[in-house]
Amino acid sequence: MDIIDNAAISQHLSHVRIVMVNTTLPANIGSALRAMKTMGLSKLVLVAPKTYPHPDIDALAAGATDLIEQIEIVETLEDAIKDCHLVFGTSARSRTIPWPLLDARPAAEKSMQAVIHDQQEIAIVFGREDRGLTNEELALANYHVTIPVNSDYGVLNVAQAIQVLCYEMRMATLAFADKQHDDQAVMHVTDSEDMHWDEPLVTHEQMEQFYPHIEKMLAEIEFMDPQNPRLLPLRLRRLFGRIQLDKMEYHLLRGIFSRVQALNNGTWKSSKPKEDQN
Amino acid sequence: MDIIDNAAISQHLSHVRIVMVNTTLPANIGSALRAMKTMGLSKLVLVAPKTYPHPDIDALAAGATDLIEQIEIVETLEDAIKDCHLVFGTSARSRTIPWPLLDARPAAEKSMQAVIHDQQEIAIVFGREDRGLTNEELALANYHVTIPVNSDYGVLNVAQAIQVLCYEMRMATLAFADKQHDDQAVMHVTDSEDMHWDEPLVTHEQMEQFYPHIEKMLAEIEFMDPQNPRLLPLRLRRLFGRIQLDKMEYHLLRGIFSRVQALNNGTWKSSKPKEDQN
Repeated sequence: MDIIDNAAISQHLSHVRIVMVNTTLPANIGSALRAMKTMGLSKLVLVAPKTYPHPDIDALAAGATDLIEQIEIVETLEDAIKDCHLVFGTSARSRTIPWPLLDARPAAEKSMQAVIHDQQEIAIVFGREDRGLTNEELALANYHVTIPVNSDYGVLNVAQAIQVLCYEMRMATLAFADKQHDDQAVMHVTDSEDMHWDEPLVTHEQMEQFYPHIEKMLAEIEFMDPQNPRLLPLRLRRLFGRIQLDKMEYHLLRGIFSRVQALNNGTWKSSKPKEDQN
Repeated sequence: MDIIDNAAISQHLSHVRIVMVNTTLPANIGSALRAMKTMGLSKLVLVAPKTYPHPDIDALAAGATDLIEQIEIVETLEDAIKDCHLVFGTSARSRTIPWPLLDARPAAEKSMQAVIHDQQEIAIVFGREDRGLTNEELALANYHVTIPVNSDYGVLNVAQAIQVLCYEMRMATLAFADKQHDDQAVMHVTDSEDMHWDEPLVTHEQMEQFYPHIEKMLAEIEFMDPQNPRLLPLRLRRLFGRIQLDKMEYHLLRGIFSRVQALNNGTWKSSKPKEDQN
């Protein structure tokens, strides 16, 4: 992920606006701005907010004051979304009229595909704290979007819902950027677990010198009978095979094996001047 | 997703505990409980909270009072995680010694695979509001986990971070449940990555006996200077922390350490009658 150009990600995400309808609590607007900024979104549109401006917005939006300055205030939801290509209305599941419904993750993937491939403008619309969006407002959306929650409880507040949707938007953008990067460059190296590591991992070929070394050491100290090693070599391969040693760890362990061998065959004794190894 | 049994999802998620270290603001504990409950998690462990109990916890945790009753309070992080098999420490990226680092999504997938396939107990550890986890606390984790954020801003507060991680845990559980459903239908054969292990894995508590043993052995053979061990203990933790030893491997390695110690202090000599160990 470190190859990602943060400015390019934010540029893509600038085409996704968060729309909050008739918000009552200024703290929720502040939290929304913070959630947006953390994930790289920048455009907030408020439809007829109940209380605006308010110091709680600035307090909760600590460090996101540049986004406060860009807030757009409009009177109606239609005004908020008129230049958008794709509008998502956030909704609990059951509504009178069934509507195309997407979970947050596929909704974010669809949005970022629309932005990156087709230069579309996207809106994600959030309703009132107490009763969400009206059926009329939801009917303005292309899709409804829902966050899969524990249905025995199931009440994300609006700030939490914005947090999750903004996170999914960022993740979808990163995935697209990663894919584009892969498509461009053949030299891209990632390991299976997406791990970020400071040292190169050893190759299979190097490990083929590691196993004979540990087995020889174990045979020399008579922990393993080379004539009848039973399952020990297999267990060692299974153990160190799944660890994926990096080069420093590889040399560290082989250093320990060599020390034990020297100790055992008398070429090294405790209390000689130290060779520092780490 | 509608075929999903909500109780079964929550059952899986009951094996994932959220651990908050030295939390200052009660409101963050309340928000954490709400985020957890919404996503189906139930177990919160507080390590030496600054203010507890407090009415703000109940206020913010509206509707999650059953989780308040189940909160566990402990004195040290080690107490909080001792029966866990897989411990994640939440962290910003740059630390003195890099650690196996996973983004929230693959971390959640790894966790729920460990829960569902191998009945493991998982801990996700969150640090103080102002300065997160100490390097010593982070060294107790098998993996570090990070949420990919806008690096030009990049400050999720602890409640937001818990929200995102709990969401990813739920999503990973839903994905596994979906997959299991598919598997039942087609008699799916497990692939190499879903391997079932034949031996139970060791707990964090057992590993806390492992590290002193290997360090003592390395000090005795003067591979490590106990007065100035430099980064060696940390490197050993990072190496064996990500391996997740099973019980047989654990005893195998400790057997090797004991053999080396005996060899070094003269209580065991090569060419004595063999003690077969594997």
